[in-house]
Amino acid sequence: MADARQYFNLPSPFAMKRGGTLHGARLAYETWGTLDAAHDNAVLILTGLSPDAHAARNAGNQADGWWEAIVGPGKAIDTRRWFVICPNSLGSCKGSTGPASTNPATGEPYRLDFPELSLEDLGDAAFALARALGVERLAALVGCSMGGMAALGGLAHHPGFTRAHVSVCTAPRAQPFAIAIRSLQREAIRLDPNWNEGHYDDAHYPETGMNIARKLGVITYRSALEWRGRFGRIRLDPDERDAEPFGAEFQIESYLNAHARRFTRSFDPNCYLYLSRASDWFDLADYGSAPDPATAVRNALAKMKLERALVIGVETDILFPLQQQQQLAEDLRATGTATTFVGLDSPQGHDAFLVDTGRFGAAIGQFMAAL
Amino acid sequence: MADARQYFNLPSPFAMKRGGTLHGARLAYETWGTLDAAHDNAVLILTGLSPDAHAARNAGNQADGWWEAIVGPGKAIDTRRWFVICPNSLGSCKGSTGPASTNPATGEPYRLDFPELSLEDLGDAAFALARALGVERLAALVGCSMGGMAALGGLAHHPGFTRAHVSVCTAPRAQPFAIAIRSLQREAIRLDPNWNEGHYDDAHYPETGMNIARKLGVITYRSALEWRGRFGRIRLDPDERDAEPFGAEFQIESYLNAHARRFTRSFDPNCYLYLSRASDWFDLADYGSAPDPATAVRNALAKMKLERALVIGVETDILFPLQQQQQLAEDLRATGTATTFVGLDSPQGHDAFLVDTGRFGAAIGQFMAAL
Repeated sequence: MADARQYFNLPSPFAMKRGGTLHGARLAYETWGTLDAAHDNAVLILTGLSPDAHAARNAGNQADGWWEAIVGPGKAIDTRRWFVICPNSLGSCKGSTGPASTNPATGEPYRLDFPELSLEDLGDAAFALARALGVERLAALVGCSMGGMAALGGLAHHPGFTRAHVSVCTAPRAQPFAIAIRSLQREAIRLDPNWNEGHYDDAHYPETGMNIARKLGVITYRSALEWRGRFGRIRLDPDERDAEPFGAEFQIESYLNAHARRFTRSFDPNCYLYLSRASDWFDLADYGSAPDPATAVRNALAKMKLERALVIGVETDILFPLQQQQQLAEDLRATGTATTFVGLDSPQGHDAFLVDTGRFGAAIGQFMAAL
Repeated sequence: MADARQYFNLPSPFAMKRGGTLHGARLAYETWGTLDAAHDNAVLILTGLSPDAHAARNAGNQADGWWEAIVGPGKAIDTRRWFVICPNSLGSCKGSTGPASTNPATGEPYRLDFPELSLEDLGDAAFALARALGVERLAALVGCSMGGMAALGGLAHHPGFTRAHVSVCTAPRAQPFAIAIRSLQREAIRLDPNWNEGHYDDAHYPETGMNIARKLGVITYRSALEWRGRFGRIRLDPDERDAEPFGAEFQIESYLNAHARRFTRSFDPNCYLYLSRASDWFDLADYGSAPDPATAVRNALAKMKLERALVIGVETDILFPLQQQQQLAEDLRATGTATTFVGLDSPQGHDAFLVDTGRFGAAIGQFMAAL
């Protein structure tokens, strides 16, 4: 497959929020469109936990990207008008430096010697990339899911770095239900003997832990409503069934199996642990200087100097409940940001932003066109 | 601890729905109150997946039971009026015969040689117990969660065996979201090398798998709403934290740890697998002779000849969504059963029937008093 990835060398050393430093770290990224003469048409997209930098097809890679329906010429994020940048997250394993990368100090993979990662580091690194590409201020910063938290983290560190913000299915701080889910996903990996405190290889790989973590992810990324319509109680054909005791009998089980199979070997377990924990740690209230978290979040948003914002979520999201996006929109409005809130009744749960692209595209397209 | 359990020897052989037979099987059970001369004041309670027969304190065991607030003199299920029977489920491990029991044919534990278990078998066995205690027809059959499905299964096999039915946080058939959760719980146990296709012992016990299964259970038994108020983002004190990499930092994580610790060694993993799978298999539509499941469920309910029913659920239940109870109540009404539906906004999720006993007690007490 063609590869459109470019690489940006982060300032070295790169200081991380919780105290560590990276030397010789880099971000993989892709771009679409052209930066205009005034350097004010840049749109930066921060991804969810697992996607790579390939948000959409481009000259270097004609394969569909993870947000193909949203990013492109004439689409919601119109690449004829905007210069779009999408990095693979710092700490991930799709070309950017993370726990699976080689530690220049040892010549071995970092594994758990990778410094503690926070979502602010993801935001800082992505903003440094945008600056290196000639962008002093973004036209729009788009953050999806984990990337939405990284966007808020980056803006907390760099107030005023974007004029507009598109916040997709995310939250200013994780609630205990989401922490419980992610903690259990991490535990499934950690308890797999093959994880071996991060020292696995292809032959001794925490496949079981990753399998359970991914299935739990899929369960919480989608929704009961969608699955009722899509799978009901449909059984597998006898020849598709698992011969093992208590093996899969229902279509929903084979759907989960297929999702897990695609993921377990394609995402590095240590990277998963680092990014997952960073999502639990993130709390915008840390930037608000108020004892009450709700007030602190609002204070933190006020400092970001956002002119306009679009906040979107879906009713069926159990990981980042719509209520959190609604509150975020209210808080943004209260701090003087012209804010559009869109609450969709998409049945697909948290993943709706990847699936119900018709409705997400309409909302994002309308917002972007008015910028 | 005192033990109030009595034992009922099931008819031997005991024929099971899916084709197997049990020899010399028994049910552990407890009772409260006295069967009246007309033998028409009996109330049978069928439990959720894990509880034992000790629903409430009684002469033999003064310890609080799992439904202490609901069952007792002057309580919602008033033991001065009703003769209350609660069995430990067939297939469980709290005194009744199940996969952890000795197989009389071999003198060894059944393990996976236990015949395929269905919730109808649980209902059949419990009804046989009631008959043996002199009950020709129940005044009320109460089923909670899995026990609610077992109750419907028993009634599908024995129409007319109860005059009234109290259906608590349950459903006539599992939806794919619930199947996905239970399938993943089973997989966590099955993938634990110590499970060893059912051949574990105390020294080689699938603790890891049970730990993950239980935590996933707790996550789906409670609700995001409750946890937001109860745990928020409260951190553990440094000395309470896990020293292991990626160990617990938040109170919600230590809450899950505590729940899992109490459960993993107190419930037999093979019994868990059998009961969990039986819950996925159960489908009242199997008894309705109609191609459309909704019609089939209604047909099946019509055959049960219920005079009155109370159907209760809570809005925050993600495992047995309130919509399922609402539909069940509508279907019962449509089939001529005088039905009360109570949808509570308890924040505790599926477990509300064990926790929000004030509201559940009020609804059940009112219904029982009017019988």
